[in-house]
Amino acid sequence: MDPRIRAHAETIVDHSLDIEAGDDVLISAPPAAEDLVVALYAELGQVGAQPARTGSSARAFRAYLHAADPDDFETPGHSLAALEAADHAIFLGASVNVAETGDIPPESLAAYNRAHEPIGDAQLSMPFVYTRHPTSADAQQAEMSTETYADFLYGTVNKDWDEQRAIQQRVADRLEDADEVRIVAGESTDLSMSVAGMLAGNDFAEKNLPGGEVYTAPIPDSVEGEVTFDLPVVTQGREVIGARLVFEGGEVVEHEAEKNEDLLAAVLDTDAGARRLGELGIGMNRDIDHFTGNMLFDEKMGDTIHLALGRALEWTVPEGRECNESAVHLDMLVDMSEDARIEFDGEVVQRDGVFWFE
Amino acid sequence: MDPRIRAHAETIVDHSLDIEAGDDVLISAPPAAEDLVVALYAELGQVGAQPARTGSSARAFRAYLHAADPDDFETPGHSLAALEAADHAIFLGASVNVAETGDIPPESLAAYNRAHEPIGDAQLSMPFVYTRHPTSADAQQAEMSTETYADFLYGTVNKDWDEQRAIQQRVADRLEDADEVRIVAGESTDLSMSVAGMLAGNDFAEKNLPGGEVYTAPIPDSVEGEVTFDLPVVTQGREVIGARLVFEGGEVVEHEAEKNEDLLAAVLDTDAGARRLGELGIGMNRDIDHFTGNMLFDEKMGDTIHLALGRALEWTVPEGRECNESAVHLDMLVDMSEDARIEFDGEVVQRDGVFWFE
Repeated sequence: MDPRIRAHAETIVDHSLDIEAGDDVLISAPPAAEDLVVALYAELGQVGAQPARTGSSARAFRAYLHAADPDDFETPGHSLAALEAADHAIFLGASVNVAETGDIPPESLAAYNRAHEPIGDAQLSMPFVYTRHPTSADAQQAEMSTETYADFLYGTVNKDWDEQRAIQQRVADRLEDADEVRIVAGESTDLSMSVAGMLAGNDFAEKNLPGGEVYTAPIPDSVEGEVTFDLPVVTQGREVIGARLVFEGGEVVEHEAEKNEDLLAAVLDTDAGARRLGELGIGMNRDIDHFTGNMLFDEKMGDTIHLALGRALEWTVPEGRECNESAVHLDMLVDMSEDARIEFDGEVVQRDGVFWFE
Repeated sequence: MDPRIRAHAETIVDHSLDIEAGDDVLISAPPAAEDLVVALYAELGQVGAQPARTGSSARAFRAYLHAADPDDFETPGHSLAALEAADHAIFLGASVNVAETGDIPPESLAAYNRAHEPIGDAQLSMPFVYTRHPTSADAQQAEMSTETYADFLYGTVNKDWDEQRAIQQRVADRLEDADEVRIVAGESTDLSMSVAGMLAGNDFAEKNLPGGEVYTAPIPDSVEGEVTFDLPVVTQGREVIGARLVFEGGEVVEHEAEKNEDLLAAVLDTDAGARRLGELGIGMNRDIDHFTGNMLFDEKMGDTIHLALGRALEWTVPEGRECNESAVHLDMLVDMSEDARIEFDGEVVQRDGVFWFE
């Protein structure tokens, strides 16, 4: 086995999570992640933890959604029970065809997501990590050869996370102290929001592997202005290109896209929370220097910010404050490398991708 | 997709189980069963049931058992919780390499089986079916081409189960009425046991697909005599050849084998119940006309009987009677096609593979 796969498994078990003897660990993985699953089973055996595998392929998921009546969707009690009984969850992505689920009717998907909201809640309230195993399909989406993509991926996951953590903490501290954030990029993006009192997360590859972002939750009704997402938004195997949103009082009041606007509309119509922002993130991992079409990597890309429609990450919202709830969490990126700036309380903290301390 | 895979999924959902809208269905499957999983997801979607997939590959299982300290094995709470919350379980076998787990130390496997006994109990106390998806490795073990093996497998699973059920019921009725069973084959097998008051099962492809056997539980301490298993016993990817057991007062008091006797010894040492018989089965599916090396098929082969060391199938033991308990259930076959007979209460019911009614 490629020793980088074993290193990846070790990073998951020892760095991203803190798995101990006797822990019940749920590994959700499609068949294409098999090699990493095998490495994880070995790693968990060594630690003395109990692995169990769950998770379907995109093909099976599509077959189910095409056959089912959306009115029949219920929260699966067995999936929920397994999560609730587990001490840790490891979610592995690995595509055989990233377009596999592209022909699922958006309203069917939205109904499924609503029924599965308790599953999402359970996942987010336990120690978990989400990572990917390299495949030819993911390489194809990233427009790389399979070999180059694997090199890229292992470069981003098997790295010095302590160093990365320290750099990011400077931005996280200043973001947590700030009340107002303004994002300006070119002619078409000028968005303001309050983050007063919200908590800033420093993602150094705990819940996401690779990590590499600083993030918080906007106060839901504070978002004002317009934003154009100049990198593609990939969801359910389709790309929304040139998405543009206008916010008033925290809500999306206008939306458009150059391509697949219907998909964007379906996301917005999932529930009330899907029309509001749940996250503002600042990408700081400069080892991620390619747009891959996969948000796990793209949202950490250096010189970008991202905004997520939908569910807020609950650990960024202090108790007693409103936490945006939704069945969706859709990240959308803005390139900040040129003619762009981030302001905290009126002070420029990043201009054209360069932070104040650089 | 091969329409026989869809027919297989339909037989599982509509014949073997009785799955209804709203049911939570757990599908345990290795990656190699992917096509059948996809067909099942479609079938379950159509019915309105909720699928969830679990189960590891043999490679992952082996990696775990090699890395773990056998003293650390515990019952995995998350696996148990998923089973207990499910309404039905579907177990799919599909090998990439039937020898994959052959180098696991038998004592490690025995310790694992002991820790997982509550999982086995939960599986057996709920509606379940076990079937297999054809692979090249399974074909290789059966000494058939991949294509021929798939033809064989679909011939045995997609068939007229009502007809098979009726033929088998004649034998089941007479077995249930009998007190004593005697199995004589050649010079080396002459085994007697009491089945008085035990229930006879008619396997017409409910819990096993393919089905095709009539079975009961011997009274644990009643088994007397000797038996030589002239077909290979395959367990954990290795073959025990020429196994021979001598019973006194229901217990194995002597054992030997021509090949892999250590594996047989480890099975016998698992726990007290592993030294006693849990099942007597009579194979009646004459469409299974090849020895495949896989017990799911072989135990249903026409003109054979099989005896299982270990756990009794609880539905064959009336309430209040002793039910043999064990972490193992190892089926072993005797060829009854030549110089052999089965007697119920001293009357010959089958001679050289021919039943009294044939």
